[in-house]
Amino acid sequence: MTPEAAFTPRDAGFEARVRASFARQRVMDLIGARLATVAPGHATIELPWREELTQQHGFVHGGIVATIADSAAGYAGMSLVGPGSGVLTVEFKLNLMSPADGERLEACGTVLRPGRTLQVTRADVYKHREGERSLCATLLQTLMTVEGRGERG
Amino acid sequence: MTPEAAFTPRDAGFEARVRASFARQRVMDLIGARLATVAPGHATIELPWREELTQQHGFVHGGIVATIADSAAGYAGMSLVGPGSGVLTVEFKLNLMSPADGERLEACGTVLRPGRTLQVTRADVYKHREGERSLCATLLQTLMTVEGRGERG
Amino acid sequence: MTPEAAFTPRDAGFEARVRASFARQRVMDLIGARLATVAPGHATIELPWREELTQQHGFVHGGIVATIADSAAGYAGMSLVGPGSGVLTVEFKLNLMSPADGERLEACGTVLRPGRTLQVTRADVYKHREGERSLCATLLQTLMTVEGRGERG
Amino acid sequence: MTPEAAFTPRDAGFEARVRASFARQRVMDLIGARLATVAPGHATIELPWREELTQQHGFVHGGIVATIADSAAGYAGMSLVGPGSGVLTVEFKLNLMSPADGERLEACGTVLRPGRTLQVTRADVYKHREGERSLCATLLQTLMTVEGRGERG
Repeated sequence: MTPEAAFTPRDAGFEARVRASFARQRVMDLIGARLATVAPGHATIELPWREELTQQHGFVHGGIVATIADSAAGYAGMSLVGPGSGVLTVEFKLNLMSPADGERLEACGTVLRPGRTLQVTRADVYKHREGERSLCATLLQTLMTVEGRGERG
Repeated sequence: MTPEAAFTPRDAGFEARVRASFARQRVMDLIGARLATVAPGHATIELPWREELTQQHGFVHGGIVATIADSAAGYAGMSLVGPGSGVLTVEFKLNLMSPADGERLEACGTVLRPGRTLQVTRADVYKHREGERSLCATLLQTLMTVEGRGERG
Repeated sequence: MTPEAAFTPRDAGFEARVRASFARQRVMDLIGARLATVAPGHATIELPWREELTQQHGFVHGGIVATIADSAAGYAGMSLVGPGSGVLTVEFKLNLMSPADGERLEACGTVLRPGRTLQVTRADVYKHREGERSLCATLLQTLMTVEGRGERG
Repeated sequence: MTPEAAFTPRDAGFEARVRASFARQRVMDLIGARLATVAPGHATIELPWREELTQQHGFVHGGIVATIADSAAGYAGMSLVGPGSGVLTVEFKLNLMSPADGERLEACGTVLRPGRTLQVTRADVYKHREGERSLCATLLQTLMTVEGRGERG
């Protein structure tokens, strides 16, 4: 198995379920992020640079980079669980490689290891700056599948 | 040296410098966080629960927990660098231990290893819920000292 | 709950069980490590410096530091699970803070968050050098409880 | 820049330098690991399964998996530094995805972000078992370049 592996979802309706869950993450509205693409074992979130998201140097704060990377990797994992299930983040590590100062960020989540109880996922965050796309941060994450835990209505 | 060690700041004006830098982190306004305490090698940030900060279950999103933990640990480190210096986060790892669903969160940053170029820091995040304070998340971080890098005015 | 919390073991025979498991870790013989202390939620492993454990500068290799830290934190967690259970490491992060060049290393594992399925644990690694004890590395770990998985005889 | 990027080494003699450094890592002899391939920004280490490397279930201990992954990623980084320089591991995170129980392990290190002072690297560890190769663990690492720090003779 490699990161490039094709994954078979357990739930044919995975995209609608992932999109509905993303819509319940109020914080995505607050920061202005949108869920761009969902595929089995993959999800991409985009975030335009905004003044209100910055730290002291004018870059997007590392915690906000973490927010979109955590959700992109989390929804990559959620695309593979069964219809009655959700996922929770157990932990993640984020390496910040260059200042998050482009016009927009793009977090690409991928499942590395699917599994019934635990999944290992990754998200690479790219910045788009003056027409160029470059790697800005990378996140390595552990997810836990939660059964029958209702998301709020 | 232990986490409980007393640290001697290189800059007697460390608290004013840290508070000025925090004030430049626009994202703290956006999420409603405030810098509670600053001491040599320590900093504490508080964040009241707000609907706009939540993920799909109604808990504060892990990336927002990371935002206050990253800054609390970062300002713990910044309290120890010289007057012309700042810090940047190289990387961090966050373990989420229980849902961030209290009335407010409190991120307590501490320096584990001071150093001229690199510092290792930690932040423990507590939730306050119905009068009880319990450990909610912990972050382990690497900081790099940056010399003469101007923060924005 | 804090790292200093007192833990109540589910199995009164936890120390014998932990010591028997440690004795099955052949790698501990290979590197010359010994299990010093076991208490509910805590375990300590000692490792004398040896030429064969070193990397290119003559310090104990970071992976060997990880080996004793991973097991110290793992056995801290194992001390709290029920009689028929064991633990497996899901993941860990290690920060190396100063060269592992003392006469011996001491890895002190502690449970941060006990739990039936997952535990979060930490290990601080100290070096003893010319009569002084100083923090050398720290590890933050996630453990999974495994039921009825036989260790080898 | 992507993980697949081609890297230009600063030192044409990088392979000899990396191989000489590996030969000074005594721990590699102890565990029976060998440096298989070195290329700009890449290094691969192989480790046959051996009883003396195991933990309580008979799998290679996670710390030994970390040992080869840390060195594979570290030598990937060292292949890109200048002739008078070396690297030290600042920190790493390791996710263990399946038991290390094959006939041999293969750790493939890659540079994600080259840099003069700090590098971010990754190592994927595969197990070879009954003719199949599968992902067993992944490591995400930060390296620091050290100038003029002599390795031992």
